[in-house]
Amino acid sequence: MEKVQRLSGNRWLFRCISCNWKDAVEKSDPPGFRCANCGDLLQIVLEGDAPKPRDLFADVSRTSIWRYSAALPVKNSVRQITLGEGNTPLLHAKRIERSMKNLLIKYEGQNPTGSFKDRGMSVAITRAVEQNAKVLVCASTGNTSASLAAYSSRAGLRSLVVVPEGKVASGKLVQAIAYGAKIVRMKGNFDSALKSVTRLVSENKGFYLMNSVNPFRIEGQKTVAFEIYEQLGREVPDYVVLPVGNAGNISAIWKGFRELKEWGISDKTPKMIGVQAEGASPIVNALANDSDTIVPVDKPETIASAIMIGNPVSWKKAIRAIRESGGFAVSVRDSDIVEARMHLATKEGIFVEMASAAPIAAVKMLKDRMQKDDLVVCIATGNGLKDQELVKFDPSSFPLVEDVNSILSRDL
Amino acid sequence: MEKVQRLSGNRWLFRCISCNWKDAVEKSDPPGFRCANCGDLLQIVLEGDAPKPRDLFADVSRTSIWRYSAALPVKNSVRQITLGEGNTPLLHAKRIERSMKNLLIKYEGQNPTGSFKDRGMSVAITRAVEQNAKVLVCASTGNTSASLAAYSSRAGLRSLVVVPEGKVASGKLVQAIAYGAKIVRMKGNFDSALKSVTRLVSENKGFYLMNSVNPFRIEGQKTVAFEIYEQLGREVPDYVVLPVGNAGNISAIWKGFRELKEWGISDKTPKMIGVQAEGASPIVNALANDSDTIVPVDKPETIASAIMIGNPVSWKKAIRAIRESGGFAVSVRDSDIVEARMHLATKEGIFVEMASAAPIAAVKMLKDRMQKDDLVVCIATGNGLKDQELVKFDPSSFPLVEDVNSILSRDL
Repeated sequence: MEKVQRLSGNRWLFRCISCNWKDAVEKSDPPGFRCANCGDLLQIVLEGDAPKPRDLFADVSRTSIWRYSAALPVKNSVRQITLGEGNTPLLHAKRIERSMKNLLIKYEGQNPTGSFKDRGMSVAITRAVEQNAKVLVCASTGNTSASLAAYSSRAGLRSLVVVPEGKVASGKLVQAIAYGAKIVRMKGNFDSALKSVTRLVSENKGFYLMNSVNPFRIEGQKTVAFEIYEQLGREVPDYVVLPVGNAGNISAIWKGFRELKEWGISDKTPKMIGVQAEGASPIVNALANDSDTIVPVDKPETIASAIMIGNPVSWKKAIRAIRESGGFAVSVRDSDIVEARMHLATKEGIFVEMASAAPIAAVKMLKDRMQKDDLVVCIATGNGLKDQELVKFDPSSFPLVEDVNSILSRDL
Repeated sequence: MEKVQRLSGNRWLFRCISCNWKDAVEKSDPPGFRCANCGDLLQIVLEGDAPKPRDLFADVSRTSIWRYSAALPVKNSVRQITLGEGNTPLLHAKRIERSMKNLLIKYEGQNPTGSFKDRGMSVAITRAVEQNAKVLVCASTGNTSASLAAYSSRAGLRSLVVVPEGKVASGKLVQAIAYGAKIVRMKGNFDSALKSVTRLVSENKGFYLMNSVNPFRIEGQKTVAFEIYEQLGREVPDYVVLPVGNAGNISAIWKGFRELKEWGISDKTPKMIGVQAEGASPIVNALANDSDTIVPVDKPETIASAIMIGNPVSWKKAIRAIRESGGFAVSVRDSDIVEARMHLATKEGIFVEMASAAPIAAVKMLKDRMQKDDLVVCIATGNGLKDQELVKFDPSSFPLVEDVNSILSRDL
């Protein structure tokens, strides 16, 4: 705790989110990224000189999150493991909800493996290399496994993906397979897989934990806040709306905006709106009951697999982010998610994975609580090609013609 | 021909690639984008003042191809239809072919619909809006249909995709369906579909042709050359290696590099290497026979569907690009393409669609003809999620364990 690391003139610390235990980032990672005192999650905080705008926004030509390296807790001397993540488009949505004048979509599907996870993975694997990791491990059935596998290959390291036995679906594991991850099935559910993986990395040198309890992932993911701020012409939105599953991303984006304000760069923060599916909404329930703790949902159910999570790892961070920001959480019906996904693609030309449509469904529900000219940014977390099996494909529905001229009068 | 349009101080003309017939771009598009004199393809050329580096490379913060608008034949006053295409990563490949020191991958899979087509579509649809088009039409079974459908939605216009009856495969049409394109099947092959579509747009007001004969698509695609030049620190590579199907892209990228030189911005051009699959290599054959014309391949066959084309529309432009640049064309075996795709994903963390792996297969074959420190850029044209059905998914091959610790000694 005493000796802290100076990085670009700054000092980075691990800090427990509950008991304020601290330790310097320059040391080894705490086992399982848990507080040595109380066992809760850790976050990474900056103590010392804050980065100046000229440090943070200097290198606009660089097409990756590493242009924000002044705000990332990694030594400058380290080899950055990057695939060109970040720098995703922020697109005006004009037709999908005409009553909102300033509705924007941050399209994270254009990341290297097609989701926002790549931002955090780039930083966490760079840290892992620095810590001499050899095998990068996660329990996951979805986007995390894809991103982990890709960045492990990029770093020349091996990756191990542990999947609960009953959750082996093709669509979500195709990328992990393609990138060459070792995949094993484990008896039990996601929670037991995560526990087993945590024990594995704690007891075996060279294995490194890449689930979202790894606070370096949060550090990478916070860069989306910096990008939004820059893309809006150095302005902060009124609302940031995003899907909440394991709840790491809402914590990360809030951290980014809070840092901009704490560092004297921006003069306000956005209200964070967390969106869950009705069948998997423990955080919505906790906030509705004004509770400081969640009641896990035993059998979460929703078509939006990326947020089908009943016991989110980062629930405490998420509740704090929402409350601190003055925001709120809402749940949306699967049917509204499906419709919003369709509208995003057909009216705006943005094809997202199911969970990413939840914020749009929420905005349609919430528009009366917002001002018409509020600046609202929805985070579209993943690419529609990720769950393309949910698009109905029926060739017999395509008219068969001798010549295209013949279809004119009939249908167009 | 006499009255030409001034755009940012420049004049843009349609020019026939064979007979030098010209017409001003400010007029309506020639029917079917064909020369009024001899019926051959058209290209767009700049006459007048060349853009200066300060015009072309001014707006580095803009995350789309439109930061190169000084080099695009579209009025400044026009509403640009964009999804944030372009600005894709240029990644060093260090492990896949260790004998090459400067092998780079331009990963076009990170475009909005997952392929390089988005660059051209953005410009062509912007032009279509300017020309008051109502329905955007193409004959396609693949990436073009996805891109067309997305940008049509973005513009608020309808899209019509014509598919040869026998070519209706799920993977490649999912995106067009999702973005809401109208899809019709037509009896006959691709050539007859293209003819029928060309007649449709010529005879019916409001319909607009979006196949690659549309020279505005070529204009958008040329921007990849500008990006490579910028990302290399204003340097031109020694070789640009890319898959060749309908041959529009090689013509476009060559045009971009040639313009940089003609405009006095760069001092050299790269050698263009066109790569075809053995079962679909009419351009390789023509060059091998020193012929000025191709013999179409009747039944093209390859696992790389994006280049399974026997009668490429832009063959003449491609042969010219390769010859002018001092480059060449090679064919590769399907088995080498499959292996290169696997190596790209597992060694570099870059997951591409099958055709995009062909350049890597070619480089492995050609490395003895290159210098070890040559700067070689391979264009990875599309995202691996596009043909994810080619990734083997066999859950029974994933070991089933009680606890992850048990697998350690056995496999890792």
